[in-house]
Amino acid sequence: MTDKKTQFFNADGDPTVPRAVMGRLSLYLREAQHLLRDGNETTNSTELGKLLGLNGAQVRKDFAHFGQFGHPGIGYKCQELVFAIKRIMGTDSTWNVALVGIGNLGRALLRYKGFNQQGFRFVAAFDVDPKSIGTRIEGVPVYSMDQLSTVAREHKIRLAAIAVPSQVAQLIADEVVKIGVEGILNFAPVTINVPDNVRVIGVDLAMELEQLAFTVANR
Amino acid sequence: MTDKKTQFFNADGDPTVPRAVMGRLSLYLREAQHLLRDGNETTNSTELGKLLGLNGAQVRKDFAHFGQFGHPGIGYKCQELVFAIKRIMGTDSTWNVALVGIGNLGRALLRYKGFNQQGFRFVAAFDVDPKSIGTRIEGVPVYSMDQLSTVAREHKIRLAAIAVPSQVAQLIADEVVKIGVEGILNFAPVTINVPDNVRVIGVDLAMELEQLAFTVANR
Repeated sequence: MTDKKTQFFNADGDPTVPRAVMGRLSLYLREAQHLLRDGNETTNSTELGKLLGLNGAQVRKDFAHFGQFGHPGIGYKCQELVFAIKRIMGTDSTWNVALVGIGNLGRALLRYKGFNQQGFRFVAAFDVDPKSIGTRIEGVPVYSMDQLSTVAREHKIRLAAIAVPSQVAQLIADEVVKIGVEGILNFAPVTINVPDNVRVIGVDLAMELEQLAFTVANR
Repeated sequence: MTDKKTQFFNADGDPTVPRAVMGRLSLYLREAQHLLRDGNETTNSTELGKLLGLNGAQVRKDFAHFGQFGHPGIGYKCQELVFAIKRIMGTDSTWNVALVGIGNLGRALLRYKGFNQQGFRFVAAFDVDPKSIGTRIEGVPVYSMDQLSTVAREHKIRLAAIAVPSQVAQLIADEVVKIGVEGILNFAPVTINVPDNVRVIGVDLAMELEQLAFTVANR
């Protein structure tokens, strides 16, 4: 395992590891977590590859970006792999996340258990609805937009989820960037523009439906 | 382009194409759609690979599962590629989708524009809330659970999204399977069991947050 985490990004903030490899780390993590839950102590690149439709060499190549994980003659210890990937991804400790927009999607996100399970905690929600400001939803306090800066500083918030109407998504993104948020999960189905030092991930739910359609259409 | 769509699954209904390759088809489709929108008429395996962090050979190998897309000396024509992938995936015509559960997440899904853009249309919603049954949400009629069978037959529904509390997710899945639904998009953060002839995709929103954390943690 490497200790030089910063090597994954160069001086310009561009990734030195392909985005797709970063994406596959999440998949390796889930498979290792599942294997572990099913009582498996070890795995190997062939097995992991098979689970993800990749060959073993690709799995080893992906991991090689981050150091040395394996044990000769054993392969990977699942628990070690989970810890190692979480450490690489920075999810070995909990992240405080802000939510902007407490419409239906926002409320659903606050309720979604999967985030907590993987080390994310919504600590504050923001909205413009005067009736909601000052209340709590799923235990999470709702603040007005002009409290963004203070609350974000207090909770050391670096990640935000944006679940607002498309028309105001860019405006909200600008606000969130201004107070120093470095990563935005954008649920609005529009592209938002941010400075180079901020990363945006747009959630594309249709992609999952496509996969279902694919299976069903071709059976 | 092949015409033998059924070759993608063997007699047991198992995919002859790795799931990961199927997953990458959605990614290729999005990139081709984006390239097209940005005014590009053609692309090639090197460019597509670069956009997705894969080498060109992997892109060509992925496509080779489905026939011949390219033009010698040109590469791929973006519009052709979009049509071809949509045809392979079965999203070249619109799918009618049922939604079960009209809580916050369900309502957010009905409102989500991305599904329509990619060829999916919610035609019916189901819930147990007597106040909602008989109303419309985002123009979609809400039915009681015991109307499931009739409505599904009427609209030829083969795909369903389940957005119900975890405790009842399996029960609802059983109901949905019973009336002949072949693909389930499961938003409840629990594993649901279905017969071999039904495919379930669980939506893991935490994976996207992990990718953000990765970038932010390692900058």
